[in-house]
Amino acid sequence: MIKQPEFSEEPWSVRETGLDLGQLAQTESVFALSNGHVGWRGNLDEGEPHGLPGTYLNGVYEVRPLPVGEFAYGRPEFEQAVINVTNGRLIRLFVDDEPFDVRYGKLLSHERVLDFRAGTLSRQAEWTSPVGGSVRVRSTRLVSFTHRAVAAICYDVEPIEAGLQIALQSQLVANEQLPPPPATDPRAAVVLEHPLVEEYRGRHGEAVVLVHKTRQSGLRVAAAMDHIIDAPAGTRVESQLFQDGGLVAVSVALRPGQRLRVVKFVGYGWSSQRSLNAVRDQVWAALTSAQQAGWEGLRAAQRAYLDDFWSRADVEVHGDVHIQQAVRFGLFHVLQAGVRGESRPIPAKGLTGPGYHGHAFWDAETFVLPVLTLTAPDAAASALRWRHATLPAAQRRAAELGLQGAAFPWRTIAGDECSGYWPAGTAAFHVNADIAAAVTRYVDATADEEFARAEGMELLVNTARLWRSLGHHDGLGRFHIDGVTGPDEYSAIADDNVYTNLMAQHNLRAAANAAEKYPDQARKLRVDPEEAAAWRDAAQAMFVPFDEALGVHPQSAAFTRHQVWDFAGTPPDRYPLLLHYPYFDLYRKQVVKQADLVLAMQLCGEAFTPEQKRRNFDYYEALTVRDSSLSACTQAVIAAEVGHLALAFDYLGEAALMDLDDLEHNTRDGVHVASLAGTWIALVWGFGGLRHSGQTVSFAPRLPDGITRLAFTVMIRGRRLRVGITHVAARYLLADGDPLDIEHHGERLRLSAGEEQERPIPVLVPQRRPGQPTGREPARRPTRARTA
Amino acid sequence: MIKQPEFSEEPWSVRETGLDLGQLAQTESVFALSNGHVGWRGNLDEGEPHGLPGTYLNGVYEVRPLPVGEFAYGRPEFEQAVINVTNGRLIRLFVDDEPFDVRYGKLLSHERVLDFRAGTLSRQAEWTSPVGGSVRVRSTRLVSFTHRAVAAICYDVEPIEAGLQIALQSQLVANEQLPPPPATDPRAAVVLEHPLVEEYRGRHGEAVVLVHKTRQSGLRVAAAMDHIIDAPAGTRVESQLFQDGGLVAVSVALRPGQRLRVVKFVGYGWSSQRSLNAVRDQVWAALTSAQQAGWEGLRAAQRAYLDDFWSRADVEVHGDVHIQQAVRFGLFHVLQAGVRGESRPIPAKGLTGPGYHGHAFWDAETFVLPVLTLTAPDAAASALRWRHATLPAAQRRAAELGLQGAAFPWRTIAGDECSGYWPAGTAAFHVNADIAAAVTRYVDATADEEFARAEGMELLVNTARLWRSLGHHDGLGRFHIDGVTGPDEYSAIADDNVYTNLMAQHNLRAAANAAEKYPDQARKLRVDPEEAAAWRDAAQAMFVPFDEALGVHPQSAAFTRHQVWDFAGTPPDRYPLLLHYPYFDLYRKQVVKQADLVLAMQLCGEAFTPEQKRRNFDYYEALTVRDSSLSACTQAVIAAEVGHLALAFDYLGEAALMDLDDLEHNTRDGVHVASLAGTWIALVWGFGGLRHSGQTVSFAPRLPDGITRLAFTVMIRGRRLRVGITHVAARYLLADGDPLDIEHHGERLRLSAGEEQERPIPVLVPQRRPGQPTGREPARRPTRARTA
Repeated sequence: MIKQPEFSEEPWSVRETGLDLGQLAQTESVFALSNGHVGWRGNLDEGEPHGLPGTYLNGVYEVRPLPVGEFAYGRPEFEQAVINVTNGRLIRLFVDDEPFDVRYGKLLSHERVLDFRAGTLSRQAEWTSPVGGSVRVRSTRLVSFTHRAVAAICYDVEPIEAGLQIALQSQLVANEQLPPPPATDPRAAVVLEHPLVEEYRGRHGEAVVLVHKTRQSGLRVAAAMDHIIDAPAGTRVESQLFQDGGLVAVSVALRPGQRLRVVKFVGYGWSSQRSLNAVRDQVWAALTSAQQAGWEGLRAAQRAYLDDFWSRADVEVHGDVHIQQAVRFGLFHVLQAGVRGESRPIPAKGLTGPGYHGHAFWDAETFVLPVLTLTAPDAAASALRWRHATLPAAQRRAAELGLQGAAFPWRTIAGDECSGYWPAGTAAFHVNADIAAAVTRYVDATADEEFARAEGMELLVNTARLWRSLGHHDGLGRFHIDGVTGPDEYSAIADDNVYTNLMAQHNLRAAANAAEKYPDQARKLRVDPEEAAAWRDAAQAMFVPFDEALGVHPQSAAFTRHQVWDFAGTPPDRYPLLLHYPYFDLYRKQVVKQADLVLAMQLCGEAFTPEQKRRNFDYYEALTVRDSSLSACTQAVIAAEVGHLALAFDYLGEAALMDLDDLEHNTRDGVHVASLAGTWIALVWGFGGLRHSGQTVSFAPRLPDGITRLAFTVMIRGRRLRVGITHVAARYLLADGDPLDIEHHGERLRLSAGEEQERPIPVLVPQRRPGQPTGREPARRPTRARTA
Repeated sequence: MIKQPEFSEEPWSVRETGLDLGQLAQTESVFALSNGHVGWRGNLDEGEPHGLPGTYLNGVYEVRPLPVGEFAYGRPEFEQAVINVTNGRLIRLFVDDEPFDVRYGKLLSHERVLDFRAGTLSRQAEWTSPVGGSVRVRSTRLVSFTHRAVAAICYDVEPIEAGLQIALQSQLVANEQLPPPPATDPRAAVVLEHPLVEEYRGRHGEAVVLVHKTRQSGLRVAAAMDHIIDAPAGTRVESQLFQDGGLVAVSVALRPGQRLRVVKFVGYGWSSQRSLNAVRDQVWAALTSAQQAGWEGLRAAQRAYLDDFWSRADVEVHGDVHIQQAVRFGLFHVLQAGVRGESRPIPAKGLTGPGYHGHAFWDAETFVLPVLTLTAPDAAASALRWRHATLPAAQRRAAELGLQGAAFPWRTIAGDECSGYWPAGTAAFHVNADIAAAVTRYVDATADEEFARAEGMELLVNTARLWRSLGHHDGLGRFHIDGVTGPDEYSAIADDNVYTNLMAQHNLRAAANAAEKYPDQARKLRVDPEEAAAWRDAAQAMFVPFDEALGVHPQSAAFTRHQVWDFAGTPPDRYPLLLHYPYFDLYRKQVVKQADLVLAMQLCGEAFTPEQKRRNFDYYEALTVRDSSLSACTQAVIAAEVGHLALAFDYLGEAALMDLDDLEHNTRDGVHVASLAGTWIALVWGFGGLRHSGQTVSFAPRLPDGITRLAFTVMIRGRRLRVGITHVAARYLLADGDPLDIEHHGERLRLSAGEEQERPIPVLVPQRRPGQPTGREPARRPTRARTA
């Protein structure tokens, strides 16, 4: 075992200079590669040791029964759970017949680098085998953004001093044995043993193909590998097949200065419908195309793809290289999770691990899509098309629940509700308004009329119908939504959740507006003027509770009247509270797991006065324990808005380092894609003060002491808008396209392409920093920068 | 198949004059015999056909995992479930080698009679076998009230015309095969296959003994049988043993006029601790004592026991023989469920079936104990001693939930929480106040100082501590209990449930009073004056919401503001609603499964003005669907109190006929003990207008048109008080003991033993009958009687 590794702080990569076997599972998530279609965890090439081996295909899942104690109408009987599919990463190496295994012999050096611009994970290791031979191994792998069915590895071995006998097995194996998951953490994965049934195995030259099928969900999965072997003369190559696997074996005697290079191409494909032959031939074709591009070709295309992305999406943070690294790390993983899914979901963990059973939640629309919408809008559209594709399931679910329109699932892979705990699942109807908000946000930012008229409008109409049937008017004509659960999972089944009501209000109005704008489509969806009017009326009559005595909004009706959680009496080791206290106790008290009312202030800011925002923020700061990774970024945004810049900076640090520092101790199951997106949100919405809705794009930039300069690019209706912020001024440059109107701290500016405008940052009145629950203060982020 | 049977209406028995095989499971429950310790379902002697074979020992259960979809802190991982133990009823009969099976051959006649005074189930059948021989079979069985470990059967066979070869096997068998339960009804049983592991089998003469043990719960169960065989000369008797069973075989050739009589004694015993030999010898001893009493001795003792009971407990209903029958049927089953348990629970189904997994709920204290307290007070004390015995488990549960004192389980057999659905289990904390109320009700009615000082006080103190820690004061000094579930299972997790708050108020005061009365005991329980004062303060500050606009009490905070359920749009086949609508929808709307606020008006009547009672009753009538059997009797009581006598009479009919008419279609799983007790409650609390608390016993009698005279006896502090009511007057006769003060419609009377007093019934102002939800009106009970 080498010394405890630390990721070095670099602006464009994550570098690990040692190897801590106790941290393997975490690093496998951090170093995971994905293109939204294929996901490879950052397992060592040789397979073992491992934290958790993982290969995922977006949309490939198995169905398993959701165990039930007591029957309840409308409770799902089955769930979909992601499975570990065929592993194509495996390259076993034998040095003088000794297996290369870092647990044995002597590891002289070990370094891994995830490069955000190259889009590769590279590794270099020097190792002496138990019997004395020393080798240098270099590998570089990528999951191709340009060839979505392809991943590839370039693997080099060379002797360090003396000549060696080298044997190498490049493998393709299904149904790997998996370590058991922790039993008592609801956030962890389930393990499905042997999920795949072999249908076909074949080989051809140095290529192997395997076709399997899942038992219950009936999905057919094909994987294939092919190789280019560059080795000294006398190298022997042969291949073989076995149950659930195949391998290509290379054996060679290497003299000092000689090298064995194996380039491995891996192709994946799956289908719920196509025949064995069709799916098999599809992966052969992927390999053919990969062979044609070659390793250098794939690598060059990967870099070009990322160059383009960073030109649209990069965020520069001066003064704090760790945050600089983190925001790019976050954007890289958001991109990995969100592009090339091609109408597949963006799971909470992307394709980096099996956490949350591979399910997608509301956080895709609420945290991930806001980033993609302004940096990779096509990926945002693709994710929304996936939601649209699940509309039939959501309509069935609404009907099952006795409601109109569509009720989208709380957690799912293919569209069916997979939550067995309804108070925090079914009752969290806000997911529907979150989807609607993602639709309008995307349409506002892109002016994508085709999407707006088709998928967008259908999503808005169906969710508006849900809200109209879910809510009701009281005797005074006020519209209420009762018995629902907002974002905060430490409250549930409450009346008039402010977040839900405001988001539903937006949803109802957006649907009415769409019906007005696209009358033909409205007719097709059978929206008549009475229905649209009923939506507007309900929106207008929407009740938003306010506690006049305290001068704050209760998160839900009566919330501020409840008992405040005994924070002083809660020891640090009882967090996260959900693992140590029963829901009944959490629900009935004032304790907030994650931003709820504060998120309402971020997403529906116009519904609050500045004074209300300040008072509400202070009030909820004292109650919010952040047992969810979906909180710090929101708190950063509103802290910045109401003027607590140092506090916002601390929250930025928490959101940014969730996975790099494994703050919640569960990065092993995959990275927190939404929290990673939250780093961008905290910077761009928080310190950039960006808000956009309708035709309005506004900024209210203000930097904390820890950042000397912040620069970012966002895509607004096809144009690149570059924003540079210092402590004294902000500069806006529209890189291309027609003129664009924006606001800077309330002042209207018209930007023309190529013409930079600068405006001063208004002076901020210092604010008293609000307190958090005992022991739950965010870590103070040291200010490394000197304020400009 | 014979014609559809109907129970004939008789005052002292239930008689079935045919045999409908489709109704077997229901009749097995109706005809079940039990003494609170041993329960035998009314299966046919020959075992098959059957609806559901069942033999139960109070307290014998198996532990099974409670399946869980998602981890939740504090959720029980295991539940206790009643098991079908060794069957000693089985007598197989062969007529000329043909098995006596009513499905074959020809059933000439079949009659079964459950006799409430004899305490027996008797049966007479005449049958012609498929090959032509005809027999008359007569059997009478009892589960002895006086010998609690003993049940017995007297079984006679005689040829009807021609002589016959008769073979009879009297069996004792464990691990019978059980039919599968319906999958989707949460009220049904679970089936535990082969719950018993054989430890011992032995025989001796005509006796057989079996000892088994449960796998997980480790309970040892012994059963034994012995016989007296009265048969013509030449009868051959032999016994044998086999895996999980033994039998005694009798074969004889009977000429016309000859008879074979087999008297079978069955003994049961079980223990969690004692050795195999000890438990085995205990059942041998039970058989010895049964043999010594003999069949006639057991039968005479049974009748004497019941004569005594009826002299204390009988209710005479003139003018409606069906209600007359039903109230005695109910009292008989309440007695069967409640006596001789000897500190064991009273399960919701008694020992008549496996429904609700054999669990006891709050309804034992709230519906069953009020009846036993005034008719068989020792049985009430015994049931409360069982609760007291589970105090350590309840204290552990409270600690697990972060609360003080004791949190008794929502459903259990041995004291551990067995509910896996916390919103309707853990959150229904009112069970604790229900237990406390049962304690004070028992102590008030019996003046049992020993119990009051010991078990009673400990129960009151521990439940008061729970309430003090569960509730909290708001900024205005009002005491709230938030996030709990009241009796109505169509609402949950609400603030300030009026029933819960009022019952908790009573609980807190009762504990403070007990601490004042028994200072030594208070010291022992570490109750200091500060703690008692805190209880009184919380009780005094208890918040009871009231809707000023509507002039009614909301069931819980905000209840009356919620949307009213769409009753008109709910077809009749969607009841019970819980099988057709999701909880989220039921919880957030105004729809009431069972009396909740109305039960508060019954049990905490002094907290409401007469006007509030009238308005509240009308309001909740329009919302209450009675999908629970625990509602009609409460509605009858308050309907009678506020003057809706005809409606009260209809509700009486519903409560009374729940099982005889199988109104909820689930009598198959056992009778509804609480609803049966409710017949008595509807008559005595309802039309008798009985209320008692502290030293006060009051009556406000008033009869509906359907009853010409109502007479009942109640036990007050060891004295029998006989009450006779007609439409014009009530007579009160204290049968024995010191003088007793009572109230009649508010007028104070002092009764001296043997001196009857008569008072007129005040005239009632006619009231408009309130409406119920569409289609949920109670069946109008025809008025058969002519009003006096």
